[in-house]
Amino acid sequence: MTDVPGGLPETITKYRRAIARQMEDYVCRRDGPLHEMIRYHMGFEEGANSPGLQGKVLRPSLLLFTAEGFGVNWRKALPAAVSLELVHNFSLVHDDIQDDDYLRRGRKSVQAKWGAKQAINAGDGIRDLSTLALVELADSTDPGLTLNAMETLGTYSLEMISGQVRDLQFTDRAEITMEDYLGMIDKKTCALLKASLHLGGLYAGVDQETVKRLKAIGRYLGYVFQIRDDWLGIWGEQEQFGKSVGSDLQERKRSFPVVYALGRPSGEELEKFEEIYFSDGDLSGGEIDRVRKLLEELGAREGTNDWAGRYWKQAKEELAKIDMKDWAKTDLRNFGKYLLTRQR
Amino acid sequence: MTDVPGGLPETITKYRRAIARQMEDYVCRRDGPLHEMIRYHMGFEEGANSPGLQGKVLRPSLLLFTAEGFGVNWRKALPAAVSLELVHNFSLVHDDIQDDDYLRRGRKSVQAKWGAKQAINAGDGIRDLSTLALVELADSTDPGLTLNAMETLGTYSLEMISGQVRDLQFTDRAEITMEDYLGMIDKKTCALLKASLHLGGLYAGVDQETVKRLKAIGRYLGYVFQIRDDWLGIWGEQEQFGKSVGSDLQERKRSFPVVYALGRPSGEELEKFEEIYFSDGDLSGGEIDRVRKLLEELGAREGTNDWAGRYWKQAKEELAKIDMKDWAKTDLRNFGKYLLTRQR
Repeated sequence: MTDVPGGLPETITKYRRAIARQMEDYVCRRDGPLHEMIRYHMGFEEGANSPGLQGKVLRPSLLLFTAEGFGVNWRKALPAAVSLELVHNFSLVHDDIQDDDYLRRGRKSVQAKWGAKQAINAGDGIRDLSTLALVELADSTDPGLTLNAMETLGTYSLEMISGQVRDLQFTDRAEITMEDYLGMIDKKTCALLKASLHLGGLYAGVDQETVKRLKAIGRYLGYVFQIRDDWLGIWGEQEQFGKSVGSDLQERKRSFPVVYALGRPSGEELEKFEEIYFSDGDLSGGEIDRVRKLLEELGAREGTNDWAGRYWKQAKEELAKIDMKDWAKTDLRNFGKYLLTRQR
Repeated sequence: MTDVPGGLPETITKYRRAIARQMEDYVCRRDGPLHEMIRYHMGFEEGANSPGLQGKVLRPSLLLFTAEGFGVNWRKALPAAVSLELVHNFSLVHDDIQDDDYLRRGRKSVQAKWGAKQAINAGDGIRDLSTLALVELADSTDPGLTLNAMETLGTYSLEMISGQVRDLQFTDRAEITMEDYLGMIDKKTCALLKASLHLGGLYAGVDQETVKRLKAIGRYLGYVFQIRDDWLGIWGEQEQFGKSVGSDLQERKRSFPVVYALGRPSGEELEKFEEIYFSDGDLSGGEIDRVRKLLEELGAREGTNDWAGRYWKQAKEELAKIDMKDWAKTDLRNFGKYLLTRQR
């Protein structure tokens, strides 16, 4: 068990090789310009300099971990893990269009290379591959289980998309309460983490009560993940984080620290913050620095971490109540510590 | 049998009621802003003035028709029909973004009402609904058949997307041969018509040889459909067609009549056509009229219809070789006549 804050714990890394191999094998079965875009996004380029599978592959790893944590062979759930990671990746390609992001995991985003219109196709293609992977890689002796997984994953994917709809609505509205924000994140980010644990449990054949608890843990992990992500978007190190630090502020996003600050009692700092953040026109570099400083003075830097810590505590309470192997509970606790302190 | 050129034959209309009812029931099960967009696009709005299911529902009708044409109860294939129509509709919502279209079936497109970014979500949501519909509406006693249908539909959907990738590439390239064009259409348009007949055959349990012929018929029908669509985009009546007549020319699309004209022997008309069509800046209304006239002088108006007729002849040759009920063969022949002469 590698327990390095900022580094991925072995809980996650131990499945990476199998996931990467299966994904590369599956994604590279098809040719042509659509699949060239998809392969680029996934990191499976042609030639010796191919970067290899991109991203932390948290979701499929959590899925396999959950299955194994209930004592079943995690390889049985590999088709669902591949399918889930592809759903996540389709959403990233479309997110980059919707957020005008040109940098993804330290490389040009698909829309930066091929334009937004073709990036729509790339995302659509990845979504279809996710469905096909689940059918084509699955054990054909249990079609009922595969269909059950398909319905589960599709339901969470739809939930994620509805969260993305709400997120885009937020940029048009000045008043976003903490409740609005958490409701949006529960769909946009938590949906696929709930899917990870739910699907892992499904392949392990756990009972309905356990599924409910797994979904709750997934939700809390999602909150911790997203709240930390928002924190890193303001106070992260560009090189480590990979995404553009400060662009959330530039775009005046209602990220967690901003929503937190807007909920503070009124005062000089809050007024100043609102004056700059809700002004017209682009924010200058100096204004972004000023906004970041004001957020700190409003307690948003620590407050954001505190909230993440509270959700993690709730996850641990649910974890204590389920019948998972002891090693798995220990591993999941280490994973939580990583989520709370990650730098990228 | 209604055999009115320009009006839909009964082959197609007789399943419409069942398709519309099942789709409305399924699509309206969910609430929230994502599903509001989806319901609008499909025509299932709230209140007494809801327009009802939009579009000709050709694909699901052909699917059910094919199943019945081989002697099975078409209701068994209804989940696949709903799923297929949803795949078609997801592609329309994304197409309208990619083609900058603000009019769809005579109403504002989703992007016209909610913007391109939200329209990406609407299309993504419809795609997920298509997967969920197939699982949730299917007869749970035959999960193997449902998975088979899922894989078949997913494969054609992926093919359709790869066709859309090529279509968008065409606008950046001056030289598009007839072979390029037909290769693109085989994917972009024919894919879901192949899916219609293939899935219909799948639910009827036909042999592989018949599947092959059904796919061939689907391809030819797709060619006839698209070639006529391109014709209507230039010479159709705005009010009947629903889409913007002339916008293909405005956008300098390499539609069938244009590709046909560009393949004519060089001469004065062709030079003039190329001079205007490949000029910089927007085309004026007068220039669009001039371009339309030049296409006529180059024989593209009749030539386009001739090509459609030839593909229809090939479809009939394949049809003669399959073991479908006689009434179904007659109906399909009437459907072909409709495709060749439709006005919208």
